Amino acid sequence: MIQTLREDPGDAEIDSHKLLVRAGLMKKVAGGLYTYLPLGMRSLNKIQRIIREEMDRAGAQEIVMPILQPAELWKTSGRWESMGPGMFRLKDRAAHDYALSPTAEEMVTDVVKSVVSSYRQLPLTVYQIQWKFRDEIRPRFGLMRSKEFLMKDAYSFDTSLEAADASYTAMYRAYRRVFERCGLKAYPVEADTGDIGGKFSHEFHVLADSGEDGIAFCDGCGYAANLEKAERRAAAAAAAAECGAPETIPTPGAKTIEQVSKFMGVPGSAFVKSLVYSADGTPVMVCLPGDRDVNEVKLRHFLGAKKVELADFDTVLRVTGANAGSVGPVRPTDSSLRIVADFDLKGASGCIVGANRDGYHTKNVDLARDAKIAVGDYADLAIARDGDACAKCGRPLAVKRGIEVGHVFKLGVKYTAAFNAVYKNGNLEDQVMAMGCYGIGVSRTMQAVIEQSHDKDGIIWPPSVAPFQVCVCLLDPSDDGAAKAAFDLEAALEAEGIDVIVDDRAERPGVKFKDADLIGFPVRVVVGAKGLAKGGVEVKRRRDDKTKTVISPAAEAVAAVKAALRPDGAEQLDFN
Amino acid sequence: MIQTLREDPGDAEIDSHKLLVRAGLMKKVAGGLYTYLPLGMRSLNKIQRIIREEMDRAGAQEIVMPILQPAELWKTSGRWESMGPGMFRLKDRAAHDYALSPTAEEMVTDVVKSVVSSYRQLPLTVYQIQWKFRDEIRPRFGLMRSKEFLMKDAYSFDTSLEAADASYTAMYRAYRRVFERCGLKAYPVEADTGDIGGKFSHEFHVLADSGEDGIAFCDGCGYAANLEKAERRAAAAAAAAECGAPETIPTPGAKTIEQVSKFMGVPGSAFVKSLVYSADGTPVMVCLPGDRDVNEVKLRHFLGAKKVELADFDTVLRVTGANAGSVGPVRPTDSSLRIVADFDLKGASGCIVGANRDGYHTKNVDLARDAKIAVGDYADLAIARDGDACAKCGRPLAVKRGIEVGHVFKLGVKYTAAFNAVYKNGNLEDQVMAMGCYGIGVSRTMQAVIEQSHDKDGIIWPPSVAPFQVCVCLLDPSDDGAAKAAFDLEAALEAEGIDVIVDDRAERPGVKFKDADLIGFPVRVVVGAKGLAKGGVEVKRRRDDKTKTVISPAAEAVAAVKAALRPDGAEQLDFN
Repeated sequence: MIQTLREDPGDAEIDSHKLLVRAGLMKKVAGGLYTYLPLGMRSLNKIQRIIREEMDRAGAQEIVMPILQPAELWKTSGRWESMGPGMFRLKDRAAHDYALSPTAEEMVTDVVKSVVSSYRQLPLTVYQIQWKFRDEIRPRFGLMRSKEFLMKDAYSFDTSLEAADASYTAMYRAYRRVFERCGLKAYPVEADTGDIGGKFSHEFHVLADSGEDGIAFCDGCGYAANLEKAERRAAAAAAAAECGAPETIPTPGAKTIEQVSKFMGVPGSAFVKSLVYSADGTPVMVCLPGDRDVNEVKLRHFLGAKKVELADFDTVLRVTGANAGSVGPVRPTDSSLRIVADFDLKGASGCIVGANRDGYHTKNVDLARDAKIAVGDYADLAIARDGDACAKCGRPLAVKRGIEVGHVFKLGVKYTAAFNAVYKNGNLEDQVMAMGCYGIGVSRTMQAVIEQSHDKDGIIWPPSVAPFQVCVCLLDPSDDGAAKAAFDLEAALEAEGIDVIVDDRAERPGVKFKDADLIGFPVRVVVGAKGLAKGGVEVKRRRDDKTKTVISPAAEAVAAVKAALRPDGAEQLDFN
Repeated sequence: MIQTLREDPGDAEIDSHKLLVRAGLMKKVAGGLYTYLPLGMRSLNKIQRIIREEMDRAGAQEIVMPILQPAELWKTSGRWESMGPGMFRLKDRAAHDYALSPTAEEMVTDVVKSVVSSYRQLPLTVYQIQWKFRDEIRPRFGLMRSKEFLMKDAYSFDTSLEAADASYTAMYRAYRRVFERCGLKAYPVEADTGDIGGKFSHEFHVLADSGEDGIAFCDGCGYAANLEKAERRAAAAAAAAECGAPETIPTPGAKTIEQVSKFMGVPGSAFVKSLVYSADGTPVMVCLPGDRDVNEVKLRHFLGAKKVELADFDTVLRVTGANAGSVGPVRPTDSSLRIVADFDLKGASGCIVGANRDGYHTKNVDLARDAKIAVGDYADLAIARDGDACAKCGRPLAVKRGIEVGHVFKLGVKYTAAFNAVYKNGNLEDQVMAMGCYGIGVSRTMQAVIEQSHDKDGIIWPPSVAPFQVCVCLLDPSDDGAAKAAFDLEAALEAEGIDVIVDDRAERPGVKFKDADLIGFPVRVVVGAKGLAKGGVEVKRRRDDKTKTVISPAAEAVAAVKAALRPDGAEQLDFN
């Protein structure tokens, strides 16, 4: 059931998506829904096997929970509302509400609560490999953003937040092994920890230009963090320049920094960008250099708020006197409005700000002199960018794109408290369990392998997760001698635990070679009458196109294939 | 994460359901929804592995299709309507309709159609192990009738109906092997083939009093068929008794055969039961012996109808002159009403029938004389019952109860024609593929194993699908010597490929023994200081409680365990 395509699918934007379809690994059913064809299924199964082995090795126990999740569970945690329209919902014939599992913190807490009663049963880590669902507005990138995807989710339960650290570390290590065994270079990077704090949230990212996440790396100290978290050091303040009195000038029709900057003929960095946010309902003005963007996660943490979002039009007008685009930190209408600023603005003078009057800006602003910003309200509030100074060591950060394939997270007691998931300690007192959650996108990992490992001819599978490790191209299936040699070789390789597919289709050699390269089998063995007459078969390694002609087909060919399957680094020129 | 319960769950009606919960194999989430806990998951995984191996051996290729199925696919086959309220449906945020997969004939046909173009790619059999959904009105019997269940569904595609026979036979044989390897006695029984005909629909049943299906078995010739299909031979006609003229008498308030029979003081078999059906909209009266029930599948086939159902009240009154309970074959109002009768009524005389007048019955009826029933309208229309004559050999049928664990079915071109799933034959002409479908209830098979193999103390797992094959009961975990012996034995057994769990909980020996029996590990090994002092451990086989004390714990204990794990029949008294 192998059917490759010569044309890229019309809706594929990135290479791995194109290759998944062209190599016949999967078939689109509808937007964001795919059938895994036999070749794709084999890779998916191999990835699952690696995950199971590493989870088991880490002491996690496999379970499986229903995909249909009663609404009551989600109402207990408050997420029936907060999950929003991205969660699929449906009713049964008795009009009970269900979610289609997007994740399972609620359900697993409910299960573990009923099974665990004593500290003697802790720590406990359970995992499942189960289909998850997300009602994506715009499914894209193949398996990267699909409506239905295979995910390994694990959950740890411990006697205390401190005890949970060991469970977290065990999963962190298991994840490193999983990705390494899948042949993936996946970098653990720090991610936002919400209210937990500490270094207990890591995402595992595969670097790729097509990645949806930005990650800041420091070559100096090894710091790596998602941009939503990445901390920077304040830039060295410019020498404080004397500046004249503020002067308000009309900037008709110019709303954005870009427009005003063009109108006034000065660079965007000379501006102070000002935005009014609502932090748990209270308006706050946020100022930052004109060429910077607000990091809302940092802002939320700095303000100690549960939720920050841009304030609505009415609020902006009421507290500043102007509409968005013309607001600024100098004398807003509401003189008690709290103003916070990115720390790169400390000591800024000679700036241009919105005048809190529609269609006007004010220049010659010295923030310390003209705006009411408390000293403690300067902080790291902007998204880090290439060249920013690393918060740890001061050397420049490099920002790269990443595909998130895994996430480990110390949850604390958010769910266990909501479900009253308690155990009895040694004194028979009820204690709330501490929890962690750990996810691997299984189908996404498969695509990330391809995104990281392909060339213009097709996929280059690492042997551990290739659909088959070896493709034996039988050039002329009607030649009995060659056919016997091919199937003998298949049997000899399988006896060594190597999985082999024999391409015995009635196709031209060129078609077979192109398909073998496109599908990306790690090793191709060509068996043809001409070669056999000269006494041998040709063994080719996909990753570097190195070939070797083996004279005696049986034992020697097996040895050559095994050598070719060795990982990078262990190789010799002629892969012996 | 092993937590057994002493009490049966309140909603469990059958032993296997009780044991699944009590042994801690699964946990109820809500009606018809269960989480598989680690022990249950291990068994479920072992069953899946057996199925995969046998599917692969039969040449089937694994795929996986989405659970979310676009409504368009179901509309193409016409089943979006006909599946009714048992199919879960939902919308995405763009208001597109989806079904939650109850089965996948439509989807697989759509996939295969796009992948297969030539006869060279056929035959092709694909399978998936995927969660299925059914909106049960009343979920019950644990995993037997749940809303979400794991199913292996396979689909074969062939060049012709004749060629499809080989695919069918290969699956039939694979199913026999699957159930045998799971330690299940599953009987293949003939089932209704719909419009296909032939012997190309078999269900695999596990006999159990709690089974929801009736199956007729013939000891004489080996015939076995679901009661919906089971054919019988007509009973020998009684000597035609002279009977007087029909006489209509009042039977006030008596509606059912039972009530009239009591009122008139004659046995139910003296009555002719008459029911008005609608066959594709046309009314038909069906007569059968008063103590028999209509087999609607047989009736539908006999009438050549697509759909038969009881006629509505108005129709009954219009065509007979009376309401249900008082209708009969003698002079109904509509004299052109077709009357068909079960063949056991041929030559029946002296019968009592409804008088087609509410509250009246007619006695002394001779059907041939008094009713207009064409000779060709006597047929096998009743459900077979215990003691009926086998249609093949005439010997008595025995009716037993069964749990359906699998079904193989030759579908013909129902779906391939609807989807125009064609291939090019050798002359490059388009031909419609012939299709078969094959299902195994994976989660249901797990429960059927328990239903078939348990006793008052708990489950008796066959070694092939037991959560663990061996439980080593370490009586006192604080005794270092015994603990070392237990873990050494675990390592020695695992080195032999036997999976072992060590019960090192701080519980009394009695609790550990009860749990080991309840969970049903095939072999229990007791390791305690007292035994070790005498130089040995005790090996007990669950299925017959036979024990053996092994003097030298290491190699001898391993040999004794391996002997105890041998299948029934291969056993010796002391399982050597």
